[in-house]
Amino acid sequence: MTSRRTPPTAADVDAAAARLKGVAVRTPLISSPVLDAVTGARVFLKPETLQRTGSFKFRGAYNRIVQIPKEQRVAGVVACSSGNHAQGVAAAAKLLGLPAVIVMPHDAPAMKRERTLEWGAEVVGYDRLTEDRDAISNRIAAERGAIFVPPYDDPDIMAGQGTVGLEIAEDLAAQGLAPDIVSANVSGGGLISGIALAVKARFPNARVVAAEPAGFDDHGRSFRSGQRERNAAASGSFCDALLAPTPGVITFEVSRHLVGEGVTATDAEVAKAISFAFRELKLVVEPGGAVALAALLHGRLDARGKTVAIVLSGGNVDTATFEACLSA
Amino acid sequence: MTSRRTPPTAADVDAAAARLKGVAVRTPLISSPVLDAVTGARVFLKPETLQRTGSFKFRGAYNRIVQIPKEQRVAGVVACSSGNHAQGVAAAAKLLGLPAVIVMPHDAPAMKRERTLEWGAEVVGYDRLTEDRDAISNRIAAERGAIFVPPYDDPDIMAGQGTVGLEIAEDLAAQGLAPDIVSANVSGGGLISGIALAVKARFPNARVVAAEPAGFDDHGRSFRSGQRERNAAASGSFCDALLAPTPGVITFEVSRHLVGEGVTATDAEVAKAISFAFRELKLVVEPGGAVALAALLHGRLDARGKTVAIVLSGGNVDTATFEACLSA
Repeated sequence: MTSRRTPPTAADVDAAAARLKGVAVRTPLISSPVLDAVTGARVFLKPETLQRTGSFKFRGAYNRIVQIPKEQRVAGVVACSSGNHAQGVAAAAKLLGLPAVIVMPHDAPAMKRERTLEWGAEVVGYDRLTEDRDAISNRIAAERGAIFVPPYDDPDIMAGQGTVGLEIAEDLAAQGLAPDIVSANVSGGGLISGIALAVKARFPNARVVAAEPAGFDDHGRSFRSGQRERNAAASGSFCDALLAPTPGVITFEVSRHLVGEGVTATDAEVAKAISFAFRELKLVVEPGGAVALAALLHGRLDARGKTVAIVLSGGNVDTATFEACLSA
Repeated sequence: MTSRRTPPTAADVDAAAARLKGVAVRTPLISSPVLDAVTGARVFLKPETLQRTGSFKFRGAYNRIVQIPKEQRVAGVVACSSGNHAQGVAAAAKLLGLPAVIVMPHDAPAMKRERTLEWGAEVVGYDRLTEDRDAISNRIAAERGAIFVPPYDDPDIMAGQGTVGLEIAEDLAAQGLAPDIVSANVSGGGLISGIALAVKARFPNARVVAAEPAGFDDHGRSFRSGQRERNAAASGSFCDALLAPTPGVITFEVSRHLVGEGVTATDAEVAKAISFAFRELKLVVEPGGAVALAALLHGRLDARGKTVAIVLSGGNVDTATFEACLSA
């Protein structure tokens, strides 16, 4: 089965929302007087930490897998992921009755591996620095006839993730508000491009901003150069969810026009944001889920006086990593 | 100034909601597919952890203090609390421009003391086992002319806390749902009695259940005997927010009729619930905020097949206590 390779539209995000209704958690928009006071902005948090599997990834995975025709489902699905896409695919496959194989790096966080196994998926390990995960996935897909579910560079995945932005737009509109800035954490760009489709269709003047770990700012550099840039390193940030080497082809077709700007935060700043979320917001956020929040807290988002939506994209953090952040 | 001593009504809760609109956070109702699967119930969490000051206590404190006539405000307010009422009073007083003195036991959690000071309150310490906090408060009130803000046994405090129940009832009704059970953590009974007023006015068949730490089940025993029973000990549970010795006079007038049943959880069960909330819900809950959740998780609430609302009443937990729960 070959995926459609043209970018999705805002209407595709609406269609994904209809498929996800009653299946995905409609996460709330949370406001915090402390966060507003600290930033001078009117901030709304979108806690995808509360989503099924603890990250937004379930949305895209379900929107993709539910569209696999019944007769092609028996051989199941295969995906590559260090953890959150893995859980999203495993959970969506389980709900829909398909077997799932996840190709996961050996250095993936223990919690993410365990939770993927708990969802009933088969996990195949690989070395992120010496092995080619795409080759492994393709071999499994070929051997079993399983359908590959890409982590981001796919119209159905992007449309599913975009429902995060649709809900932000709907909930703000219901309060009579328009966002000045919407920012989310970025790896391959599926989430931010999907969000941009939904938000810009309703609020054309809203700025959609990609938040990336310092040193892994392939989107920010790509926006400036106009072409897909690569990160120098494949590892070296504890934001394990955000280590994709370069923007996706389809995601970049959308994000170069509808996003177009990026901010970064260092690991130390992200650790402080995780500690802030524990102390002041009472929310558990993983490193890759806290970059946009860290950028906001460190004044990188030019948020003062503005209405700002920040996506907390995941909360699957090991106890040891979390405790290290609290004492940072 | 003497407080009215008759119990509040559901209409008083409505009036409190009008006073709190735009000041208190309207916390969301959160659902979790994992929690539903584990319990066999349809569970809705009311995370007052996300409330201003990290607990529901701000609601009652603000509803009380905002009704102090302007000419009586200059001498400020005084309150006794181990931490959450302290922060609620301090924050409400600060927002309304009154000075606040908090009489706080020496063994209050460090985080709660620090946050009360951050809100600009003056903290006066005392020994919970050898000193009489009421005498200290009365002396301060007499010396300064400050108005005492009771922690629970006051109609305005109860009505303010009851807005938690009003919001639960409204949000469930908006989804076409009726709660079978609403459960909250109980100390003096201000929260549970306020919730019962609001919920039973809209859903007369809903059961409202008091959740107490094992060994501090004064409400459960009082409901059974028909009179206000006392706890044998004044300390010995790590649920520091729930150590009131006996139900309030006014709160019990309401709760004996509208609540009438209690459940308990041990400290070990509460620690497991805090760990569950970290791993599966991505929420930070303090010991006294997790007793109802612990009772639900340990099958004490007869929740299977039912629609259940659980109040997570606070999230102000020290790092050391939190980490101990994660490794329990």
